[in-house]
Amino acid sequence: MTEHDLIRELAEKNSTKIVMLVADGLGGLPMEAGGKTELETASTPNLDRLAARGTSGSSVPVLPGITPGSGPGHLGLFGYDPLAFKIGRGALEATGIGFELGPHDVAARGNFCTLDAAGKITDRRAGRIASDESFKVVEKLQAVKVPGVEVFVRPVKEHRFVVVFRGQGLDGGVADTDPQATGVAPLDPQPHTAAAAKTAEVAKAFVAAARTLLKDEPKANGMVLRGFAAKPALPSYEELYGLRAAAIAVYPMYKGLAQLAGMKLVGTSQTLSEQVDELAKCWQSYDFFFLHFKYTDSTGEDGAFPQKVKRIEELDAILPRIEALKPDVLIVTGDHSTPSKLKSHSWHPVPTLLVADTCRPDGLTKFSERDCLRGGFGIFPAKHLMLLAMAHAQRFGKYGA
Amino acid sequence: MTEHDLIRELAEKNSTKIVMLVADGLGGLPMEAGGKTELETASTPNLDRLAARGTSGSSVPVLPGITPGSGPGHLGLFGYDPLAFKIGRGALEATGIGFELGPHDVAARGNFCTLDAAGKITDRRAGRIASDESFKVVEKLQAVKVPGVEVFVRPVKEHRFVVVFRGQGLDGGVADTDPQATGVAPLDPQPHTAAAAKTAEVAKAFVAAARTLLKDEPKANGMVLRGFAAKPALPSYEELYGLRAAAIAVYPMYKGLAQLAGMKLVGTSQTLSEQVDELAKCWQSYDFFFLHFKYTDSTGEDGAFPQKVKRIEELDAILPRIEALKPDVLIVTGDHSTPSKLKSHSWHPVPTLLVADTCRPDGLTKFSERDCLRGGFGIFPAKHLMLLAMAHAQRFGKYGA
Repeated sequence: MTEHDLIRELAEKNSTKIVMLVADGLGGLPMEAGGKTELETASTPNLDRLAARGTSGSSVPVLPGITPGSGPGHLGLFGYDPLAFKIGRGALEATGIGFELGPHDVAARGNFCTLDAAGKITDRRAGRIASDESFKVVEKLQAVKVPGVEVFVRPVKEHRFVVVFRGQGLDGGVADTDPQATGVAPLDPQPHTAAAAKTAEVAKAFVAAARTLLKDEPKANGMVLRGFAAKPALPSYEELYGLRAAAIAVYPMYKGLAQLAGMKLVGTSQTLSEQVDELAKCWQSYDFFFLHFKYTDSTGEDGAFPQKVKRIEELDAILPRIEALKPDVLIVTGDHSTPSKLKSHSWHPVPTLLVADTCRPDGLTKFSERDCLRGGFGIFPAKHLMLLAMAHAQRFGKYGA
Repeated sequence: MTEHDLIRELAEKNSTKIVMLVADGLGGLPMEAGGKTELETASTPNLDRLAARGTSGSSVPVLPGITPGSGPGHLGLFGYDPLAFKIGRGALEATGIGFELGPHDVAARGNFCTLDAAGKITDRRAGRIASDESFKVVEKLQAVKVPGVEVFVRPVKEHRFVVVFRGQGLDGGVADTDPQATGVAPLDPQPHTAAAAKTAEVAKAFVAAARTLLKDEPKANGMVLRGFAAKPALPSYEELYGLRAAAIAVYPMYKGLAQLAGMKLVGTSQTLSEQVDELAKCWQSYDFFFLHFKYTDSTGEDGAFPQKVKRIEELDAILPRIEALKPDVLIVTGDHSTPSKLKSHSWHPVPTLLVADTCRPDGLTKFSERDCLRGGFGIFPAKHLMLLAMAHAQRFGKYGA
């Protein structure tokens, strides 16, 4: 029996509310040997108080030693095994710019490149064309028609864009057209499998039409396509857990990831305070609330230790407003660690806290990487966090008699 | 290589003795925030002394957040993955009343119901018929003959009974006949699969014969059958571990579960003290001893915190008598937690202790939920406990050279 079958078998509906507050890249490292981490440096009276009431642990996003991107990081938190459910590059890229993929879509990431008269690549990134210049080229491409499918072209940044083909019988099994070299022509789109034959033909027709349209562009007169992918077939929160789930996020990537799990996007909040306003507003309409806080990750990526500390304190300060709504289960976690010292995502376990009346005390009185190691959940796979959320929300029946 | 294949490959025989004392529903919760659990409240000098000598840990019966029934809870302790080995409802029900299922049996749980003249259900529980009244109806049913199979009908309680069909070519893949509604007739037994065609016919013949026999019953003149299931195909303790295993339990359910694992039932003890008498008596004839203590669960189910504390103290007090037999491995654990606060089984990890001369000390000096979190076994799946038992009993060879 798979874990998802078990969830479906045991899930029950009731009126409990679950809040999952994801501080992106929450875990950190001391900058120097013997020093303190960002969480240890920050003043977090609310998190510490909640740690004394709840149960803590260290969640492992994928596997020990594996650093996840935002996609696998969030899939794990949402209860999907990030090794079993993959979001293809094209689908993630489309999701990241807020393009809502449908069930008949195949998305690919496009890079503009510069071709010579013979059609050979002279610059793989079209001279790192500026975004505003590139956006105009994307606008031109939106005129491309391919018979039998709808085509959507959307800008990303600089030389990068997304193309989505929508139609019956499409499949993500098409090879990248990037030869990964200059002096050669882009490859023709080739199907890996029989199911992708039509998609490869569609992509070929798109590239050919684009080539004609862009022939006078000084930099972006060609393109390569990578990471063809359909929308991943994630069971929805409603179907899997019986939860009406709301996502309150600021950035398109996280809105997109939540949508892939069937969550409804709520509001247009731009700050954490506005996100909590939104939470209060939609409180009666949903059972599960995913709140995403980006800045613990972006400050970590910048290597800005004191700024990450401040962002943690900002997060801590908002907690009483969330507690005032009396969630039955309140979770604070991250999708991965982003230590300022490393200026990047990392594989280190993520400090995680769950607060509910059914928590068994684990003796902790502080929320930090070091304390969470001794927490009552131990060191556990992130994909099991939703099992604990459902249990503490008393939304699981008994397994077997 | 599966874990069971590994066990078979490495298992060796010697003269060591393993005692597994299962305190049903052992783990608990504080009744109020900041309070103590049942184990923390109880005075347990023997458990504390043994914790200092042995290694402790927190066992997870199935998966984090999953609350097991007695069946999956014990399967895990016995070393069977409770998600891979399922005991169907009918088989568990038969087991629970002490009916020893054979390899050619299919059991179903029956509910008496009341039918009107047109054969439609007017009461799905036969007016919650009293047990003594219902037992007489069961007695009548024992006269039913179905050609080609043996039929056993046994009472459970009130409107509930068990029917077992014994014969060649039977299979549990038959759908429930309960329409889950009144005003309609019970469904005919339908096979899910070709293999269950004969069983469905047998069940249909049984229901038809019963109908005739019960036509004058005022309440229980009909029946529905649910949870058709054969005996689960568990490898036996002898075959898997090379252990001659004895079960010393008071209640039929736990005797039955032990029998499914191929353990021999020993004695007819009614108290913990008598169970230990029995243990001493059969000490030379077995290698592994499963002792089941029910009352830590039943007091928890009743929400009777002080009574559960007393039962824990009763358990603690018996330990020196078990130690006097000098088991090479002594395990104290539970099949799941039953916090008095929740008045039910729960998903919380179970405090577990293993004492052997080969234990690595983990620094603990007390046996409790909180201490076990910091124990040398960490937080571990219950199905791995038997691996540790076998290792400390020096009954495993080396894996690979």
